[in-house]
Amino acid sequence: MKFKVYSELSYEVFSPTTFIFNIQAAKSASQKVISETLIVTPFIKFEEFTLKNSDTRFVKMEVEQGVFFTVIYEAEVEVSYTVYDEKVLLKSIPIINLDHEVLPFISPSRHCESDKLLELATNEFGYLPNEYAKAKAINEWIFNTVEYKTGVTNSSTSACDTLLDRVGVCKDFAHLGIALCRALDIPARYFTGYAHNLNPPDFHACFEAYIGGQWLFFDPTKLAVANGLVKIANGKDASEVAVASYFGDVTCTFMKIDCNPVVSDFIPFNSELDTKAISYE
Amino acid sequence: MKFKVYSELSYEVFSPTTFIFNIQAAKSASQKVISETLIVTPFIKFEEFTLKNSDTRFVKMEVEQGVFFTVIYEAEVEVSYTVYDEKVLLKSIPIINLDHEVLPFISPSRHCESDKLLELATNEFGYLPNEYAKAKAINEWIFNTVEYKTGVTNSSTSACDTLLDRVGVCKDFAHLGIALCRALDIPARYFTGYAHNLNPPDFHACFEAYIGGQWLFFDPTKLAVANGLVKIANGKDASEVAVASYFGDVTCTFMKIDCNPVVSDFIPFNSELDTKAISYE
Amino acid sequence: MKFKVYSELSYEVFSPTTFIFNIQAAKSASQKVISETLIVTPFIKFEEFTLKNSDTRFVKMEVEQGVFFTVIYEAEVEVSYTVYDEKVLLKSIPIINLDHEVLPFISPSRHCESDKLLELATNEFGYLPNEYAKAKAINEWIFNTVEYKTGVTNSSTSACDTLLDRVGVCKDFAHLGIALCRALDIPARYFTGYAHNLNPPDFHACFEAYIGGQWLFFDPTKLAVANGLVKIANGKDASEVAVASYFGDVTCTFMKIDCNPVVSDFIPFNSELDTKAISYE
Amino acid sequence: MKFKVYSELSYEVFSPTTFIFNIQAAKSASQKVISETLIVTPFIKFEEFTLKNSDTRFVKMEVEQGVFFTVIYEAEVEVSYTVYDEKVLLKSIPIINLDHEVLPFISPSRHCESDKLLELATNEFGYLPNEYAKAKAINEWIFNTVEYKTGVTNSSTSACDTLLDRVGVCKDFAHLGIALCRALDIPARYFTGYAHNLNPPDFHACFEAYIGGQWLFFDPTKLAVANGLVKIANGKDASEVAVASYFGDVTCTFMKIDCNPVVSDFIPFNSELDTKAISYE
Repeated sequence: MKFKVYSELSYEVFSPTTFIFNIQAAKSASQKVISETLIVTPFIKFEEFTLKNSDTRFVKMEVEQGVFFTVIYEAEVEVSYTVYDEKVLLKSIPIINLDHEVLPFISPSRHCESDKLLELATNEFGYLPNEYAKAKAINEWIFNTVEYKTGVTNSSTSACDTLLDRVGVCKDFAHLGIALCRALDIPARYFTGYAHNLNPPDFHACFEAYIGGQWLFFDPTKLAVANGLVKIANGKDASEVAVASYFGDVTCTFMKIDCNPVVSDFIPFNSELDTKAISYE
Repeated sequence: MKFKVYSELSYEVFSPTTFIFNIQAAKSASQKVISETLIVTPFIKFEEFTLKNSDTRFVKMEVEQGVFFTVIYEAEVEVSYTVYDEKVLLKSIPIINLDHEVLPFISPSRHCESDKLLELATNEFGYLPNEYAKAKAINEWIFNTVEYKTGVTNSSTSACDTLLDRVGVCKDFAHLGIALCRALDIPARYFTGYAHNLNPPDFHACFEAYIGGQWLFFDPTKLAVANGLVKIANGKDASEVAVASYFGDVTCTFMKIDCNPVVSDFIPFNSELDTKAISYE
Repeated sequence: MKFKVYSELSYEVFSPTTFIFNIQAAKSASQKVISETLIVTPFIKFEEFTLKNSDTRFVKMEVEQGVFFTVIYEAEVEVSYTVYDEKVLLKSIPIINLDHEVLPFISPSRHCESDKLLELATNEFGYLPNEYAKAKAINEWIFNTVEYKTGVTNSSTSACDTLLDRVGVCKDFAHLGIALCRALDIPARYFTGYAHNLNPPDFHACFEAYIGGQWLFFDPTKLAVANGLVKIANGKDASEVAVASYFGDVTCTFMKIDCNPVVSDFIPFNSELDTKAISYE
Repeated sequence: MKFKVYSELSYEVFSPTTFIFNIQAAKSASQKVISETLIVTPFIKFEEFTLKNSDTRFVKMEVEQGVFFTVIYEAEVEVSYTVYDEKVLLKSIPIINLDHEVLPFISPSRHCESDKLLELATNEFGYLPNEYAKAKAINEWIFNTVEYKTGVTNSSTSACDTLLDRVGVCKDFAHLGIALCRALDIPARYFTGYAHNLNPPDFHACFEAYIGGQWLFFDPTKLAVANGLVKIANGKDASEVAVASYFGDVTCTFMKIDCNPVVSDFIPFNSELDTKAISYE
């Protein structure tokens, strides 16, 4: 499935500032970037980089005081995903047999204090028969008990806050999903990307849980179509893959995000959600 | 109903210390202290006092460094309570018509941060048809989701902690019940007292919610028989009516608490709990 | 010293709402209300009340959905205060000898979690030679380390939050002062009132510490002139004496507060602050 | 400098449990493991692994219910370190020029919520002239204001907790140091290792700050000799490099840790600390 993604971010810069962006589509076996452009207006020198052993694509630049600038990213991306039937997902992999690279995603992280939620997660979801049932129940529970509301949470909000406050935006929903999965020893990670038809338009954050050997996709906001996403990056949580980090005094003055299928015959994946799951790998 | 209550508290005192105890049975229209003695061994001068507009009975004393001492309180107390049928409890009193003295019990307090729980309480219990149904559901929910466990919480633990940790002792259960009621605009207060057949034996903490013009009794631990209590005091939470406060370096070395009906024909109130409620006023 | 105080509060009411206001000047031995008027426009029936054993003057009213209304309070108030010399303030009163009515103000409260700050307060201020030195150092420390900034904190913010965040408004400064005093066993209470020349104009919040038998006045924001205040109320913290509490869906659309000396020869008390303290009792 | 390190850990296992240990000396350009043995008694199959792009050496094993077992690790390790003079350390590297692999260590992590401490860190340490002065002042401040005390904190304790509670053990000291450095945009990471003459004997935790292009070593507990350590691992915080993680019901029944220089002429590095710093790279 081909998508066109577009993001436009404008900033006013009040002090010399280093920016680190993470807005480019991920490149992986299941996601090919057919074409892309990144334009900074007025021109500011930028550098792309990735960390060792990570596919996350960062762009960094140094911006002087007093500058207004805009970053525009456009890409055409071929995304493939796999649909798994619930039956396949019933098998559980003991921790001892997990791929080593998956293990860090059982540990707590800045915004996902799973270590504090062992009792709560076990009490609410521990009785369920398998990991897929647990992750699905967590996803539904968040959707049903947390109110989607912008402007209430901030970049310091974490899963424990959201459990008490019961309000937040997509990143808060995702952090809570991740924390509750990890509290049940289910590896889980943050997923940031472009989402088709997201309303309000923005970057989207969801989560993936490692079940039956697959990273399965979950969106506790239910704001996006499950097969309408283009991945930017995975990470332990938003602290590792923030869309934009800056070190300086800055205001974001404009933001436009878009994500559309190239072909007209896009079929939203939805009705089968109860018994089937999607993996973006 | 007549009860004999007994408490014995021993302390080792490592620095000059002021003690304030709150262990004597309350005196009220519905609770008569027939006889009582308070003995401090070895003898230390103590003073009884109450605060203006409060029935809470405090005892204070100054203890020198190096002293081991024991406080023994014994009393025979006549307790009366009223049983209310659910039908009576369906009527709700608008806040504007509440007795003024009840209003402070809607506000948050040290251990009952109801102001943080408006969304959560509304989401979990707001759909219920009346205040009695809400308070009863809160009581059941705490009983079902919080594990009774000693040694995990301390005197700083509050309702938000317990909501996340899901473990605690009677005071933690009570604080959570109070916080959730207040978050729904139901006045609620802390109840500390002696409880018959409590296991492990200790002072007990429960809560009361003001519904239909009555202070109804709730025990989310379900460890005590609802009509087997002798009240020591009410307060906003444990910070106002702690059993023992001390200003100094002290260890409690021994504790024995007892509460028994004087007559042999004590009939535990229990089976009717679903449709009837008890008020200790 | 005579002051004219004025407050005007306008609200838009989106659901049937009970309001409880606490905006009238306190009446006490040291503060006489010479004249006052409270007007609600358009007229809504209101009721004044005080709680037993409290001087706090509340006004409550029930407002229907869809109403816009304004409360205007005007008063002329004679305020007297006492100036204490530091020498008088050096004597410490052991807890055992404190007036009983003062004792509740050593306990923690909703926004002043002194029980969590024993180590911190002792570490930072415990070395100081007497209670007045400690309270004064706390006041200076808050002024120097907390930034005054509106719009960052909310009605759930408490002393521990402010200790970490280091930003807030007058109530947050006051709560932190109270919590740190209580952590050192110095009774402390919240003071809400009208302040002369406050900028931005608003109700003001400060704190009082009980030292040498007096309730001494402290303003860690240093935004008000120490002898330019008209007290509305004291309480354990803002949870007991909020300017306006409402139970419903409401927006405050306008606010005007004023406080001016009637005579032209008002002499601000300031230069002597280092060795003299004010008590509003 | 050659050291012999020894650790012995015994566990009683109450349910089938997966263990992941991280107790082996790190292998790096500046630290050579000359010889080592890892023995599990009674024998349990274990597997060593490292994550991609990480030197951290993990050992995992699956242990059945009812087993008592002991892990003994012994090694002889050649450690080298570099001493830097303060003058070298004065130069600051702008974020834009930092090695990319260092960037993740500016972000907050589970136990180091630097994002919450920007104001506090700037207020307390921001005035200092360079990054080395800031990190050194942070180290001193923690040593002076936090009390070393075992049994008060647990594996969920984080920097914000320690800032309020002012008590903790080496990992809590390290987390606070890391959080405060990151809040000032100084990259900082957790250091876990064996320490000579540590009292009480245990694994040790310290931190490293990236200053002037070097990872400089800091120990805010001041319990270890700065040149008496053998590194086990670095990580964002303890959540990434815990000495022992287990998924199951387990009690640690015995622990013995030792670390001694092989040669008798070991010269503790200490007196020069004011103007010189150590890097273990």
